[in-house]
Amino acid sequence: MLVRKGRIEDMPAVLELIRELAVFEKEPDAVVVTAEELQRDGFGESPLFYTFVAEADGEIIGTALFYYRYSTWKGKTVHLEDLIVREDKRGTGAGSALYKEVIKFAKQEGVRRAEWAVLNWNTHAIDFYERSGAAILQDWFTVQMNEEGITKFTLDL
Amino acid sequence: MLVRKGRIEDMPAVLELIRELAVFEKEPDAVVVTAEELQRDGFGESPLFYTFVAEADGEIIGTALFYYRYSTWKGKTVHLEDLIVREDKRGTGAGSALYKEVIKFAKQEGVRRAEWAVLNWNTHAIDFYERSGAAILQDWFTVQMNEEGITKFTLDL
Repeated sequence: MLVRKGRIEDMPAVLELIRELAVFEKEPDAVVVTAEELQRDGFGESPLFYTFVAEADGEIIGTALFYYRYSTWKGKTVHLEDLIVREDKRGTGAGSALYKEVIKFAKQEGVRRAEWAVLNWNTHAIDFYERSGAAILQDWFTVQMNEEGITKFTLDL
Repeated sequence: MLVRKGRIEDMPAVLELIRELAVFEKEPDAVVVTAEELQRDGFGESPLFYTFVAEADGEIIGTALFYYRYSTWKGKTVHLEDLIVREDKRGTGAGSALYKEVIKFAKQEGVRRAEWAVLNWNTHAIDFYERSGAAILQDWFTVQMNEEGITKFTLDL
């Protein structure tokens, strides 16, 4: 197995992984992003994200998608948005290898924080992250306004 | 009161607001970012963040700092990192005006999601966000690896 930077031609395979995860999470219709959007957004002059992919036997079996964020306390940070391994390839070390590559990237970039989110019932992942040196912050909620909310928004509250 | 885009020369005042908030949160030493970093990171060829500022009587009394993120389901999103109003200017409508400007920005950019975080005990803010059309996601924890964790990281788990 090889872990390498994702290339523009990998995006259809990356989208397949994204869709597989959404089906697994019973939200297949939530994925509205297209391969063309991934190619445009991740590979232009100011990429909105970066990827690593895990490749085995010429097939992409996993991906880590990440980007920069900005902390008003710590400056530039790295955010790991998704780490996906194809279901039939879990337990092969692909997930750890991708995770390692992202933290190495954060180290090379000299950022003061790497960050991501985990579902609060996913104790296996939480244990793994803690063992790797990360802290779990339990006192924040995520707030999201979706497309409909943004469109309808008025501030007459 | 006027709300406008933040300019490079506003960054020292923006940093003062960031520091004031950190003192209020009893974490004054957590702010390691400098005005020079804010100027470099927010105003280069690929800005890592954008700001709106609220100005009254020639003074900056509040700021909203935001940037793009990337959802593997929704594509490009807007993330509101901080919304700060100087303590003696709270209740003047500056916070709402800044919030409104960020959602308007998200609408103009055509993103499918705007996102931010709220402390789980901040019921006043949570109510406000819900009334404005946002959803509170209670099932995610934030995971952070700090500089020490990144430096020491090995994946021999």
